[in-house]
Amino acid sequence: MCGVFGAFSKDGNSVLEDVYLGLYALQHRGQETAGIAWTDLFGNKNVHAMRGSGLVHTALDQKALSSNTANVAIGHVRYSTAGGSDFSNAQPIIANYARGSVAIAHNGNITNATAIRNFLENRGAIFQSTGDTETILHLMAHQSHKPPLDALVGALRLLRGAYSLAVLLGNRLIAARDPWGFRPLIIGQRGEVTYVASESCALDIVGAEIIRDVKPGEILVIDEKGMKSLKIPVTPRRKHLCAFEYVYFARPDSLIDGRSVYGVRKALGCYLAKSSPCGKADMATGLPDSGTISAIGYAEASELPYEKVIVRNRYVGRTFIEPTQRVRDLGVKIKLNPIGKMIDGKRIVVVDDSIVRGTTVQRVISMIRDSGADEVHVRIASPPVRFPCYYGIDTPTCEELAAARMDTETLCRNIGADSLAYISVEDMTEAIGLPAPDLCTACFTGEYLQGGEDYEMDL
Amino acid sequence: MCGVFGAFSKDGNSVLEDVYLGLYALQHRGQETAGIAWTDLFGNKNVHAMRGSGLVHTALDQKALSSNTANVAIGHVRYSTAGGSDFSNAQPIIANYARGSVAIAHNGNITNATAIRNFLENRGAIFQSTGDTETILHLMAHQSHKPPLDALVGALRLLRGAYSLAVLLGNRLIAARDPWGFRPLIIGQRGEVTYVASESCALDIVGAEIIRDVKPGEILVIDEKGMKSLKIPVTPRRKHLCAFEYVYFARPDSLIDGRSVYGVRKALGCYLAKSSPCGKADMATGLPDSGTISAIGYAEASELPYEKVIVRNRYVGRTFIEPTQRVRDLGVKIKLNPIGKMIDGKRIVVVDDSIVRGTTVQRVISMIRDSGADEVHVRIASPPVRFPCYYGIDTPTCEELAAARMDTETLCRNIGADSLAYISVEDMTEAIGLPAPDLCTACFTGEYLQGGEDYEMDL
Amino acid sequence: MCGVFGAFSKDGNSVLEDVYLGLYALQHRGQETAGIAWTDLFGNKNVHAMRGSGLVHTALDQKALSSNTANVAIGHVRYSTAGGSDFSNAQPIIANYARGSVAIAHNGNITNATAIRNFLENRGAIFQSTGDTETILHLMAHQSHKPPLDALVGALRLLRGAYSLAVLLGNRLIAARDPWGFRPLIIGQRGEVTYVASESCALDIVGAEIIRDVKPGEILVIDEKGMKSLKIPVTPRRKHLCAFEYVYFARPDSLIDGRSVYGVRKALGCYLAKSSPCGKADMATGLPDSGTISAIGYAEASELPYEKVIVRNRYVGRTFIEPTQRVRDLGVKIKLNPIGKMIDGKRIVVVDDSIVRGTTVQRVISMIRDSGADEVHVRIASPPVRFPCYYGIDTPTCEELAAARMDTETLCRNIGADSLAYISVEDMTEAIGLPAPDLCTACFTGEYLQGGEDYEMDL
Amino acid sequence: MCGVFGAFSKDGNSVLEDVYLGLYALQHRGQETAGIAWTDLFGNKNVHAMRGSGLVHTALDQKALSSNTANVAIGHVRYSTAGGSDFSNAQPIIANYARGSVAIAHNGNITNATAIRNFLENRGAIFQSTGDTETILHLMAHQSHKPPLDALVGALRLLRGAYSLAVLLGNRLIAARDPWGFRPLIIGQRGEVTYVASESCALDIVGAEIIRDVKPGEILVIDEKGMKSLKIPVTPRRKHLCAFEYVYFARPDSLIDGRSVYGVRKALGCYLAKSSPCGKADMATGLPDSGTISAIGYAEASELPYEKVIVRNRYVGRTFIEPTQRVRDLGVKIKLNPIGKMIDGKRIVVVDDSIVRGTTVQRVISMIRDSGADEVHVRIASPPVRFPCYYGIDTPTCEELAAARMDTETLCRNIGADSLAYISVEDMTEAIGLPAPDLCTACFTGEYLQGGEDYEMDL
Repeated sequence: MCGVFGAFSKDGNSVLEDVYLGLYALQHRGQETAGIAWTDLFGNKNVHAMRGSGLVHTALDQKALSSNTANVAIGHVRYSTAGGSDFSNAQPIIANYARGSVAIAHNGNITNATAIRNFLENRGAIFQSTGDTETILHLMAHQSHKPPLDALVGALRLLRGAYSLAVLLGNRLIAARDPWGFRPLIIGQRGEVTYVASESCALDIVGAEIIRDVKPGEILVIDEKGMKSLKIPVTPRRKHLCAFEYVYFARPDSLIDGRSVYGVRKALGCYLAKSSPCGKADMATGLPDSGTISAIGYAEASELPYEKVIVRNRYVGRTFIEPTQRVRDLGVKIKLNPIGKMIDGKRIVVVDDSIVRGTTVQRVISMIRDSGADEVHVRIASPPVRFPCYYGIDTPTCEELAAARMDTETLCRNIGADSLAYISVEDMTEAIGLPAPDLCTACFTGEYLQGGEDYEMDL
Repeated sequence: MCGVFGAFSKDGNSVLEDVYLGLYALQHRGQETAGIAWTDLFGNKNVHAMRGSGLVHTALDQKALSSNTANVAIGHVRYSTAGGSDFSNAQPIIANYARGSVAIAHNGNITNATAIRNFLENRGAIFQSTGDTETILHLMAHQSHKPPLDALVGALRLLRGAYSLAVLLGNRLIAARDPWGFRPLIIGQRGEVTYVASESCALDIVGAEIIRDVKPGEILVIDEKGMKSLKIPVTPRRKHLCAFEYVYFARPDSLIDGRSVYGVRKALGCYLAKSSPCGKADMATGLPDSGTISAIGYAEASELPYEKVIVRNRYVGRTFIEPTQRVRDLGVKIKLNPIGKMIDGKRIVVVDDSIVRGTTVQRVISMIRDSGADEVHVRIASPPVRFPCYYGIDTPTCEELAAARMDTETLCRNIGADSLAYISVEDMTEAIGLPAPDLCTACFTGEYLQGGEDYEMDL
Repeated sequence: MCGVFGAFSKDGNSVLEDVYLGLYALQHRGQETAGIAWTDLFGNKNVHAMRGSGLVHTALDQKALSSNTANVAIGHVRYSTAGGSDFSNAQPIIANYARGSVAIAHNGNITNATAIRNFLENRGAIFQSTGDTETILHLMAHQSHKPPLDALVGALRLLRGAYSLAVLLGNRLIAARDPWGFRPLIIGQRGEVTYVASESCALDIVGAEIIRDVKPGEILVIDEKGMKSLKIPVTPRRKHLCAFEYVYFARPDSLIDGRSVYGVRKALGCYLAKSSPCGKADMATGLPDSGTISAIGYAEASELPYEKVIVRNRYVGRTFIEPTQRVRDLGVKIKLNPIGKMIDGKRIVVVDDSIVRGTTVQRVISMIRDSGADEVHVRIASPPVRFPCYYGIDTPTCEELAAARMDTETLCRNIGADSLAYISVEDMTEAIGLPAPDLCTACFTGEYLQGGEDYEMDL
Repeated sequence: MCGVFGAFSKDGNSVLEDVYLGLYALQHRGQETAGIAWTDLFGNKNVHAMRGSGLVHTALDQKALSSNTANVAIGHVRYSTAGGSDFSNAQPIIANYARGSVAIAHNGNITNATAIRNFLENRGAIFQSTGDTETILHLMAHQSHKPPLDALVGALRLLRGAYSLAVLLGNRLIAARDPWGFRPLIIGQRGEVTYVASESCALDIVGAEIIRDVKPGEILVIDEKGMKSLKIPVTPRRKHLCAFEYVYFARPDSLIDGRSVYGVRKALGCYLAKSSPCGKADMATGLPDSGTISAIGYAEASELPYEKVIVRNRYVGRTFIEPTQRVRDLGVKIKLNPIGKMIDGKRIVVVDDSIVRGTTVQRVISMIRDSGADEVHVRIASPPVRFPCYYGIDTPTCEELAAARMDTETLCRNIGADSLAYISVEDMTEAIGLPAPDLCTACFTGEYLQGGEDYEMDL
């Protein structure tokens, strides 16, 4: 999981501050590193960059940024997947090669990166990072006989897996989305400025209107002449848009491929209420914050009162608590506190977005019972997660996935719930409202992307 | 607004980590400075302290703390009121005087501090800070002929205004609450450890049971012999418990003087729904996060759907955004984003806890309208704030208070709402559920504390 | 050992930068903390301060300083003696008391500070630091019925021991030197600016001319009307100017009470050459940097070649090397390196300023022998140090003083020298060129200050 | 100017601390960045690195270093020449290529780096830095069909200009010196540990014995089997050892190609005294610290007293003084202070190592005159610098070189001296004591390296 953002301005106004704000709106997609790369306004096409560890505010110096001026810039927030979590993998990554400079911000995971790397190293390439994104730069550098844009198309043609990219090439902004459409990517406009963003909430923050989603397999070249659409010459068997973007990752105020994430989450709760009702309960609540919206939907469809009786410490995430023995003993109490006075003697439905390892939900249930609840029923707004993700999400191995290790009944006992139910893949698909074959549900079903067509490394 | 916490352990276990966690749970009461003071476990009664600026995690070094051991400690989080906001006013404040060392953590505001300071300076006192809390130390030092506890009682006798204190005196923990009971203060217990805290949510985080609230005018001395109750020799006319603690300040999972803050807030919404219904609306929502719970109450009592259609950026507060021109132009959009797809063409009730200057609600309404809402009705879960607070809350002057400057109808037009209604003082009092004369409602009614009885500075 | 500096400007030019430079020139007198206090130019007489740990550059923010303007300021560099080395003892110390604000920078050590502190604490005083300087502030605050300047004179009257002070009192700069004249203090002038400094080298750096030394027992009040001399009402039996200022502490380019420190050091070497010649040697060298100048004098008077054959790493002092086992094994080699090619087979005279514990000289001799020297003769430009100092110098206890534990012959064997000789107290006094009774030679002779006259604490 | 250091241990002891100390001893060769690269002791051959800005102590975390263990490591201190001064050019530079990892520390300047870079970029290479050293890595990567050591020899064969290298190749330490021997490089031994260093003073600090200098054109491969010598297949016309290493750069306690730097500097002073005596002078002094040793030689040969009458602030270099207007006005006084009492009415010979721009010497002479000197005679221990250096020394352009702009007489008037004299190239060569054709005197004579033989880029 990462977030990308880019902006190109036809007038002379600097876009650096907008990219900073865009990354701030995408912060939920990555808290490990943040970075911005930009091109000088005055045409010498040097690429500058600022990158750092931590949240946008820590990683980037807003004051120093605003002392620069750029009419085109890209940014990235990183949540480590491939490449390890150290700072040296911060993006955008930048290179100067024979044809000039190029900067790339990448959300996703390229599944054939290692094979490409081996091929290139044998031809003299020196890789700087352990990440997959750098393969794109070297593929371009090894096609230095072609114009840079052709070299980029030639590079993307060879990639398999997930990539939503914002690219800085000379004085152009380029948006590209892999042929399978794994990760979202959307285009917006405000006056003379064109934006590309991982999610529409980042367009909102800068006051831009949504133009449209970038299509799977599309390259959009944005420069002073406008926006031109190219095609990545790869033909996918079907789309693979990640269902978890709706279930968990994306911000509720985003629209992805035309669907409101808030609306989908509420619908997930409604479908769940219908398939797995719990009529005798006194109230429904969500596990904060991931289960909140589906819980509102569940309560509404069940005609149960919705209550916010599990309070999340507002400062969780801002303050790191050392995991000493005392802290481990207190466990989830450090973060969440059920309101005993509201819960005592009640039957409660707790809604959450998913169960991965199952440890958190187990501790929460135990804590709710300690606060006096009579019954605790768990409803999960996604199907059981049974398979790892290879497309950019940091899931554990099968051995650690609770739903891969035991059936629902066993897991219910294991977490100490009075009942446990999941939404079905079919109901989830209907709640999302997209045609079933367009979604990637590999982590629920194990149906991964089936290769691409064959190709030759004809650089 | 500040938060205090203290712990005394009869067994040999260190309480420093618990004080750290207690402050973390009270973080909402002050983000400017944090500090902890403690006494050596091995009886030499030296007072040590760690204080710093910012959130608990930034201000205090948890690792360094845990390398110390203390059986008694107090802590403080500060939100500046009297004394300015610089680090030199960080608490606990500590002094070594002729009778040993004393450390004090204070929530509240002493209204006769300046008079006392002048008196003492003429007798040779050198004040270090500009805050009101230091007067207590000097009053004690100028009674060095008395035992320290008597000197403390002698000092508190002379104070007027609001103070909830955690005090470290030698190897004793002392809790004291002013005779008017302005600010909350509660006692808890876990095994051999006794705690004092501004709010019960801080007892929850360390796994302690509530014992009882400290009574107005009570001094509780906690040492290895147990807990002893003394009385501050001042007779108040009536109690003055701050109503805003329920309305806004306290965490919803706290109990104050026996009443659940969550329950009170939901009840405020219900009363508001009855007194100011809005039957034709499509949904009710809260202004995040302060209006959320009352909005749930409003929606339930009105039989309207409750929706979370205004999304607050989770990282607001963690990331500081420089207020550049561009940022000012974008305004509240940086923090809050209404979900256009859910709002478009709808009639919406927006509930918030209070209106102070009125600028935020104005901007939010404008933003909601821009997102396509047909009607925006505002409901406020407290009466109009018309008077400044002198008891520890940082309110603006009358000139800046929207409700002091205009009537409700004018204000409604001013903020651009289709309707605006407040809860009445009576309904608020009923929702809180305490006898009316026990509450301080000075900011709504202008009925301030009427002096204390007279006294002489007979040190 | 500490350094003080102050400046008062009659014209409107700020003196803050000059105080910064003055402290930089006095850096050799203290590297632990540095601080500056100043008064607003525009008359509101608020005292501001900047203090920090480490060298002047680290402790003070020159850019922030230069954004302020002040016509009077004092500064201090600290080398810990009384009061411990922590940052909380950084000077200037500042207080607001009933009569306004006062700031003090102090070089020396007050020997009756504890008695005064006890007396004041029983009258209600709260001390902030563990240092002796704070007693002056409290003595003034307890005379708040007098004008501040009278209160200062009244305070100094009660002190015994060493103090050279720069004081900021309202808009006045005050220089004061104890009646025994333990530590140097000198006045300079540049245009409309009057300066006070611990050493004349600090007057040189700001381009000021020497006016004269502050006399023992003198208080100089510098304000817009000029310079007024007051007397501290204490009558000393004799002067006690520290001989070690010439031998080691002061910079060679300073003049103290009219005598050039460089000239004195060279003369010490000449006297030593006459009393303890070493005719058969091939060269004389100094132990860098403390013995260099006396070695030049010794070589010249002995007609031996002077060679700089022990090289000191220029970065010693800038770079802190962790004392790991490997580093301890390498020992003094980390700092000093003899040039084997120049030393091999030679007879060498090594001159140093003093022997305290004797460990360094022992290691150096061993290293010189390892480099091939045939003979190593040690000459010390001060008498044997046999007694601790109570007047501001951080000497070890008698048990640790090499010359207190053994006679010269034993010590010579102990450090591995072929011969060892000291200068006599008489020759040292002649080399310094002041009347013998004016010098404090207590660390050599044990003749300490004999009380003061009696006094009453009549505040 | 840079410094390199490397260590290889046959036994299991870690060499990291020794490399740290070696860099500390070479700190005078570069203060801008420092770095260390090492290989895991346990054979997996991963290369780790720590690099930073500033002095060794600031740039490198000694504690973190000592928590690692390595039997082979190299280090570098950087004084920027080619490549700009930013941190991204810190060395050692490291790369992973098809044949594993390689790390390089480089002192010198490769004169054909740009041509090589262009060639490689057209073959797909992506350069990370702007420095010349990276060309070596890419030349190796483009010979990935050869074993790494052969690739290194193949790379060095193509280089022209100055390079003394410490290289980490798998588990081997490699020392290499260009065929012209521009910069020094020396091998030492202590027990089972073999060292390579820019100067012998770095061998002294770790307690190692000098084995021998690395020969021009030699590659020494040091591994568990011992030390093997290879030849770089380039035939130089003559040697080009930099004369300025003796005159200024190297530490006086180093031996370079068998000659003592201290001895050479003293001899330079003696030759100068003979060729340009100044019989009527009262004393000779050196401009600290660069002229000190030659001044001692000059004084001795002239039978004049040597005096240290210009005092350099010991903290210059540790404390950065902002160049404000006031500081600029005070000029060199901030750093140097002549002792007026010693100088007044005297005729003084001031010796320095060289005149580059002439601004410092001008200001010093003016300051000495202001202190009362009657006559100031300047003697320079190197010939006039008239030409820029292309081999690793940061000289200004011809226009800025004082001796290129005017003849000695004019310059003498210009700097305000009573007389000015340089040593001749012949006398300097004799003082150094090496055959004349072995020295690079290009900056004095303009006789640069005459090409190398031709070569093809046959990778």
